[in-house]
Amino acid sequence: LLGSMSSHATRLRLKLPAICCLLQLVTIILFAVFIRYDQETSARLWHEELTRHNKSNRDNEFYFRYPSFQDVHTMIFIGFGFLMTFLKRYGFGSVAFNFLIAAFAFHFQSHLLNRFGHSFFGCLLSWASFMINADFCSGAVLISFGAVLGKTSPVQLLLMALFEVTLFGINEYILLSLIGAKDAGGSMTIHTFGAYFGLMVSRVLYRPQLDKSKQREGSVYHSDLFAMIGTIYLWLFWPSFNSAITAHGDDQLRTVMNTYFSLAASTLATFAISALVNEEGKLDMVHIQNAALAGGVVVGTSAEMMLTPFGAMIAGCLAGLVSTLGFRFLTPILDSRLKIQDTCGVHNLHGMLSLPHTECLILALLWAVTGSYKTGPQGMMADVFPLIADGSRTATYQGACQFFALLITLGVAVVGGSLVGAGLKIRALGAPPDTQCFEDQLYWEVPENHHDGYLPAANPEDPERSA
Amino acid sequence: LLGSMSSHATRLRLKLPAICCLLQLVTIILFAVFIRYDQETSARLWHEELTRHNKSNRDNEFYFRYPSFQDVHTMIFIGFGFLMTFLKRYGFGSVAFNFLIAAFAFHFQSHLLNRFGHSFFGCLLSWASFMINADFCSGAVLISFGAVLGKTSPVQLLLMALFEVTLFGINEYILLSLIGAKDAGGSMTIHTFGAYFGLMVSRVLYRPQLDKSKQREGSVYHSDLFAMIGTIYLWLFWPSFNSAITAHGDDQLRTVMNTYFSLAASTLATFAISALVNEEGKLDMVHIQNAALAGGVVVGTSAEMMLTPFGAMIAGCLAGLVSTLGFRFLTPILDSRLKIQDTCGVHNLHGMLSLPHTECLILALLWAVTGSYKTGPQGMMADVFPLIADGSRTATYQGACQFFALLITLGVAVVGGSLVGAGLKIRALGAPPDTQCFEDQLYWEVPENHHDGYLPAANPEDPERSA
Amino acid sequence: LLGSMSSHATRLRLKLPAICCLLQLVTIILFAVFIRYDQETSARLWHEELTRHNKSNRDNEFYFRYPSFQDVHTMIFIGFGFLMTFLKRYGFGSVAFNFLIAAFAFHFQSHLLNRFGHSFFGCLLSWASFMINADFCSGAVLISFGAVLGKTSPVQLLLMALFEVTLFGINEYILLSLIGAKDAGGSMTIHTFGAYFGLMVSRVLYRPQLDKSKQREGSVYHSDLFAMIGTIYLWLFWPSFNSAITAHGDDQLRTVMNTYFSLAASTLATFAISALVNEEGKLDMVHIQNAALAGGVVVGTSAEMMLTPFGAMIAGCLAGLVSTLGFRFLTPILDSRLKIQDTCGVHNLHGMLSLPHTECLILALLWAVTGSYKTGPQGMMADVFPLIADGSRTATYQGACQFFALLITLGVAVVGGSLVGAGLKIRALGAPPDTQCFEDQLYWEVPENHHDGYLPAANPEDPERSA
Repeated sequence: LLGSMSSHATRLRLKLPAICCLLQLVTIILFAVFIRYDQETSARLWHEELTRHNKSNRDNEFYFRYPSFQDVHTMIFIGFGFLMTFLKRYGFGSVAFNFLIAAFAFHFQSHLLNRFGHSFFGCLLSWASFMINADFCSGAVLISFGAVLGKTSPVQLLLMALFEVTLFGINEYILLSLIGAKDAGGSMTIHTFGAYFGLMVSRVLYRPQLDKSKQREGSVYHSDLFAMIGTIYLWLFWPSFNSAITAHGDDQLRTVMNTYFSLAASTLATFAISALVNEEGKLDMVHIQNAALAGGVVVGTSAEMMLTPFGAMIAGCLAGLVSTLGFRFLTPILDSRLKIQDTCGVHNLHGMLSLPHTECLILALLWAVTGSYKTGPQGMMADVFPLIADGSRTATYQGACQFFALLITLGVAVVGGSLVGAGLKIRALGAPPDTQCFEDQLYWEVPENHHDGYLPAANPEDPERSA
Repeated sequence: LLGSMSSHATRLRLKLPAICCLLQLVTIILFAVFIRYDQETSARLWHEELTRHNKSNRDNEFYFRYPSFQDVHTMIFIGFGFLMTFLKRYGFGSVAFNFLIAAFAFHFQSHLLNRFGHSFFGCLLSWASFMINADFCSGAVLISFGAVLGKTSPVQLLLMALFEVTLFGINEYILLSLIGAKDAGGSMTIHTFGAYFGLMVSRVLYRPQLDKSKQREGSVYHSDLFAMIGTIYLWLFWPSFNSAITAHGDDQLRTVMNTYFSLAASTLATFAISALVNEEGKLDMVHIQNAALAGGVVVGTSAEMMLTPFGAMIAGCLAGLVSTLGFRFLTPILDSRLKIQDTCGVHNLHGMLSLPHTECLILALLWAVTGSYKTGPQGMMADVFPLIADGSRTATYQGACQFFALLITLGVAVVGGSLVGAGLKIRALGAPPDTQCFEDQLYWEVPENHHDGYLPAANPEDPERSA
Repeated sequence: LLGSMSSHATRLRLKLPAICCLLQLVTIILFAVFIRYDQETSARLWHEELTRHNKSNRDNEFYFRYPSFQDVHTMIFIGFGFLMTFLKRYGFGSVAFNFLIAAFAFHFQSHLLNRFGHSFFGCLLSWASFMINADFCSGAVLISFGAVLGKTSPVQLLLMALFEVTLFGINEYILLSLIGAKDAGGSMTIHTFGAYFGLMVSRVLYRPQLDKSKQREGSVYHSDLFAMIGTIYLWLFWPSFNSAITAHGDDQLRTVMNTYFSLAASTLATFAISALVNEEGKLDMVHIQNAALAGGVVVGTSAEMMLTPFGAMIAGCLAGLVSTLGFRFLTPILDSRLKIQDTCGVHNLHGMLSLPHTECLILALLWAVTGSYKTGPQGMMADVFPLIADGSRTATYQGACQFFALLITLGVAVVGGSLVGAGLKIRALGAPPDTQCFEDQLYWEVPENHHDGYLPAANPEDPERSA
């Protein structure tokens, strides 16, 4: 039955190989032309570095970034991948399309990011600005994936990733290089951008008849446990995410500590509000799986600063509160009023916290300048706000820049998402029909009797039981 | 049916939010009043440190503790969390209540631990003594959680965590600061304390009618696989647990190596004994999930010393043997004779090994002093036993102190657990009735047809199948 | 029914304990006689090292190897363990026998590896050459396990591990010490050796009647998701695997980067080919779970070199292509023509890539010598090819050595695997009958109603539902 419903339009036998090969070929050519090993990676350059600066092999940046990087890598592929397996019939698509588009974004983006702000030819492949940014960029794409989960073909997803990665690079260049905004944990460049981009794609691809797939939109017992694998890994490694590219030394340690405290506080807040908004006082797995992470998002930009542990906890509490309320009250409104079908509720976790985290940053900034940085040597301020430290900016001006950067990000995400969404409407890209959303059988060989919710009552052809 | 059984007593709509908010508020206030960034975390102090001691940013303690810490963090939230999902209908509660109380204990404890032995105001937030101890303290609470799993409400669990964390801090202060005992891997402070505290709580909360929930106390096929995720992560990262706060250099490496060998040996022993004690020679998942970890527990205190690889293996073998026998023969006796209902069998893994690991330590100590440390310079002994190295103690006296520390720990755990258990009997705390233990539906929104063991035979309203 | 079928031959009540105890005893004795802590681990030797070389505790090798090592450790126990849980009724055996034989191989091998090339008595237990090699050796055994998965008893598996570990040590000694071949990522010593050893064991143990267990050879929906946990972890940490024992500095960073790019490319290629070879254009989980990893295997030996990022991508693409085609077309032929029943298809991932990775290495080698290393100082070449750097070998000669090393490895694996397979035919070792392959109930206490595919239609004795 389903086999026959997998009509011409959704067959990917040629489309998917074609797009994969094309994207891979383009990436290989771009790398061959533009990218070279940098001085930490190239045998010749590193040995020159060793001699010139009297370094030892153990001073290589590798040893000071690799563990954090692997944590972030785990978040992208295990964290996001399993978080989305909560859907009862879309586990294969969740974890494996996540794998596909993250792997693509991971090695494609690198090129673009380095195009801007650096020389064009002979661009160097540096560890921090390249590999870690590659995962950050994948993160933004996966947030958007959360909004359109179950309603798109892998061909659409790869195209979305292609354009989103490009816009991510442009937006990041504007924010960090032109405006001089701070965004170590990617609150704006990753969360705000990824969420609103994905929401706009979802808006443009609005499906009035999505109710026909409603019976598959929920979870089953074990799919919720798989999703918890994703949640816990995201929660565990968020401190590494926020600190992966901050300055070495106290900055990195402080970012990690602040993020821990914020996450712990948002977890308690989420349990509290989840019970409170349920008529029977029962907890909801959707809230725990998502809103408990809000503490990591909200301090993304500010965790680097002298936020103080209790400041981080207050931020985390508020984030957990706002995010859980969003899942309970805002998601239905987005769907019915604004026609935005947000499968994973990315708006509540990644989008809605844009304003709080910006305010959080601005407060931290004022606090920083008037407070704890003031009496110390110049160097410690220069790590965080080089432009304030060298006197070319006031703290107020920096605060205004941060707010302006948020507006730019929203603009790029909304316009970009709308255009890309419009492009993805092309029928040949293999989108599922409204009756077949959230369904693995459309794109996957699925084992028969495949899971709980759809298990046949009797199974007479079972060779074991008839024996 | 179940909805209506979730009567007034077990409704958490106001209770859970109230306790979460209260605990969070107290924590925030304590942090605001007492806790400051230390010299590795504060921008000003670290930059003074840099200047004064001619350090570089890469000398920050962060780079030498963070990877181990993240391993321990993974053990607490993934390891313990998934280990307990073996119950067929309590997977949500296992992983998510684990998440809740660990997140609470993680940021609450830090305060208390630093109250003792340090100045009261302006206490510094240091990485090793604070963050890693925070996870250790969570570990003790989670061991106790294992004893009462499925028989307590989240409100009870948070209260238990609150008091256990406090007593943990007091006990640790007595052991490490007053008695001068060694306990790098927390054999006494974490395992012995957590186990006997939880067992006493379980004893006081004894349910004579627990048989009415017997049908839910077992596992289903996939819940045992989820539990194996927890087991393997605990097993993998136990070397990081035991070495997280040992001295830098050879100590940390030696602790890691000894723990590996002990764990590998306890794994073989567990498989051997599990087959031997079963009438048909079949292996039992409960043994593999738990007793294979005994090798990590047993060398918790002694792994730091010159235990030698073969010594570590012998300790691991014996631990696996004792622990598996405990699961097979002792747990039923504890239940029927001593009225201790130990859901996860924490006595067999964490409690019963108290005496062996203390003996193991004392032997290692004598060996150390008479053996391998003797001929070396003073420094290497001072890392492990500063009081012996500076001549203020003999090895025998240190051994007696270790044994005395064990008795103290047992005392604090038993008395503390009894009192806290008595407090948790208050009906308003929402404990499940005897007929509804090990059941997620009491506190959770559970998807219909939710899992294997309770799947309805036929499912006529299924829109897919009726189509 | 099944209980009674678990006849005398497959009962392990005495056999499994006997073999476990024997192997453990031998290991303990070997360690007691031969193994001592090395200068990084021993308190005395390390403190002498500190004094003599003016080192600090933070220069201990531990800090520069431990994070990579833990990644590799995770691959062995979580990665391989869960990858094999795809079988619907063999999840316990997959993850737990993986655990057993890896734990055994992990601590047994260490001895052997150090027998060759070092002094016999007082052999030192060094971190890099011992612990990391221990995991590498386990990896080879687990690859062989993949070929015989579900068709062997744990007693057979332990014996296979015993002999394979021994031969692994001999082969590695020949390759690295006698021939002077390079194999940092273990392409030959681990992948080629493990795969062909396992395939030969499977060939010798050929079961003409395996069709009788055919209904259990597939997956169910959730077992495929468990397998994806394994896949993603293998994919994530493969860069650590390939770089775990390369030289410090640029070598290690370059290995990591090249492996990332190769893996990302093989993922895209796998999705492309998986859709292309399916008549309906549907993706196959078997391909994604396995072939996406081919990029890590193929650059195992060459990732250390100046492969360039685009070179790594091309290698990864080809590996994903070849591996996916192997799963689709070669595995059935191996079974029907060559009578090799390869449960996990290890030939496609680990075996078949032997020739490509050797060619890849030889090309990289020529490129290296004629290209990027040439103009630099001697030191940077010496890290990778000491024998070429000091002039005792030409690049061509080294290339010939690599090819010769591959032939040796194939020889040792094929001859060794055949002999060991013949030994494993002994009936007393408890192999499952042809009708009971891929079945946990033979060796495990399995909970009733245990999983999807075998759930009874109605469940009248369920106390909950009859209430």
